[in-house]
Amino acid sequence: MKNLKVTVVGLGVIGGAFAEGIKQLGATVYGVDIDEKTLKYAKEKNIIDEGFLIGKEALLQSDIVIISLYPSLLKDFIVDNINYFKVNAIITDVSGIKESIISQIEGLLRDDLDFIYGHPMAGKEKQGIEYADLKVFKNANYILIKSEKNKKKNLILIEKLIKELGFKNINYLTAKEHDEIIAFTSQLTHILAVALINSDDEKNDTSQFIGDSFRDLTRISKINADLWSELFLGNKKNLIDKIENFQDELSKLKILLDTENSNLLKREFIKSTKRREKLDN
Amino acid sequence: MKNLKVTVVGLGVIGGAFAEGIKQLGATVYGVDIDEKTLKYAKEKNIIDEGFLIGKEALLQSDIVIISLYPSLLKDFIVDNINYFKVNAIITDVSGIKESIISQIEGLLRDDLDFIYGHPMAGKEKQGIEYADLKVFKNANYILIKSEKNKKKNLILIEKLIKELGFKNINYLTAKEHDEIIAFTSQLTHILAVALINSDDEKNDTSQFIGDSFRDLTRISKINADLWSELFLGNKKNLIDKIENFQDELSKLKILLDTENSNLLKREFIKSTKRREKLDN
Repeated sequence: MKNLKVTVVGLGVIGGAFAEGIKQLGATVYGVDIDEKTLKYAKEKNIIDEGFLIGKEALLQSDIVIISLYPSLLKDFIVDNINYFKVNAIITDVSGIKESIISQIEGLLRDDLDFIYGHPMAGKEKQGIEYADLKVFKNANYILIKSEKNKKKNLILIEKLIKELGFKNINYLTAKEHDEIIAFTSQLTHILAVALINSDDEKNDTSQFIGDSFRDLTRISKINADLWSELFLGNKKNLIDKIENFQDELSKLKILLDTENSNLLKREFIKSTKRREKLDN
Repeated sequence: MKNLKVTVVGLGVIGGAFAEGIKQLGATVYGVDIDEKTLKYAKEKNIIDEGFLIGKEALLQSDIVIISLYPSLLKDFIVDNINYFKVNAIITDVSGIKESIISQIEGLLRDDLDFIYGHPMAGKEKQGIEYADLKVFKNANYILIKSEKNKKKNLILIEKLIKELGFKNINYLTAKEHDEIIAFTSQLTHILAVALINSDDEKNDTSQFIGDSFRDLTRISKINADLWSELFLGNKKNLIDKIENFQDELSKLKILLDTENSNLLKREFIKSTKRREKLDN
């Protein structure tokens, strides 16, 4: 990666980790962020080579641009900077939703630019570059979006970069498949964690009566409200489908409990155990 | 603990950890289990001093008896062994439900015996002594059941033992309070994990598209079907109440999504974040 120049736009938890990791791989890394303190911190901690409050200067030199902004800001960044991207630059993003993003952006791109849409399945219940941590990438899953338009050599380069950052699996999905699957594996889990902790009647000091299970199930109820509202609303139909599937399962279990149907209850638990064991392989 | 003789009945994940921990504290530890291989393993691994297939011989000598059996087996063990407990012995249990257990047992006890009902809030998604692990007790919560009958000096001894095994907080609750609280903090979480993983439509290989959040929320869907069916059915009313509270919260979130009420959604996320942050303190 030594001869590459890479710009990371948005130095939060994820953008910061990308910048740090790519710099460690030997590339020149520019950071773009609207927060001067973030840029100063990133430079001091050797996460970036140089920081910029606006895109122009960094983009003009960059072979790869990683945009790590909230979905609602992505389109505007592209519009505002469309003339500054280097000829034949590769652009990628890290957004947790894809169909709406891609439909907003596709018409805006210059023909020479190659946007490879991506989703690193890694994160943290924290905000800001101070919490950026390469370790969250270790062995994590990465989804890239299938497209006829992407150039083979660019895909190979991006895949190489992803692997070198520590990710384990890269899978290609269509935007539609991505949004459906993510509604289940990532968005539904966040909704459940929020509903669980918000359903506490708080009659008691819950913290005194919990085990690891409650801690694990509510960890992600510490949630970036602005970001996740965007992600949920941007994938509303899929997410509601998954919520309804879940509601059906939960109602089924409640009925089995209520009717004291021990045999069928156990069958559900044996099923869940087998399914979970598969995830450990 | 050097002069104490302690019997642990049921050398599973929890009983095994109690035996190992108490032996390390210097007491003499007898293990009672119906499985000969378990007793052999426990003795070889220095988890117990001596193993027995039936209670009599161990109980006759023991100052403390820790019964770590499924709730459905607890009463029978007491009935079968009521004449063998040492005079003035302390008995304790580890059951995850309390009202039904206590009502079954209270009439059966000899007057000299002091049963201090307890619930260590620690566990593992595994079964059998090979998985017994003292580490699960480290900094965990412990609930003891309030009773006028327990002797002060016995409570002091049991509290000391619990602390020396690594537990952090000991809280006293009535059996009724215990079952209500546990329905929320422990039983509901297991039901949700099962419903989540069982609601997977399995169109895709889910394992390729998950992050830590899905792993965390489904960890406890690997569940001992026999044990947890007993615990759920033995606390049915409370658990159904908690499931319904949860269902209400989830429906509320679904409606906010469906109506695209971004402001109220964010308010729910800010609430969940604040509540979860409190648990970290």
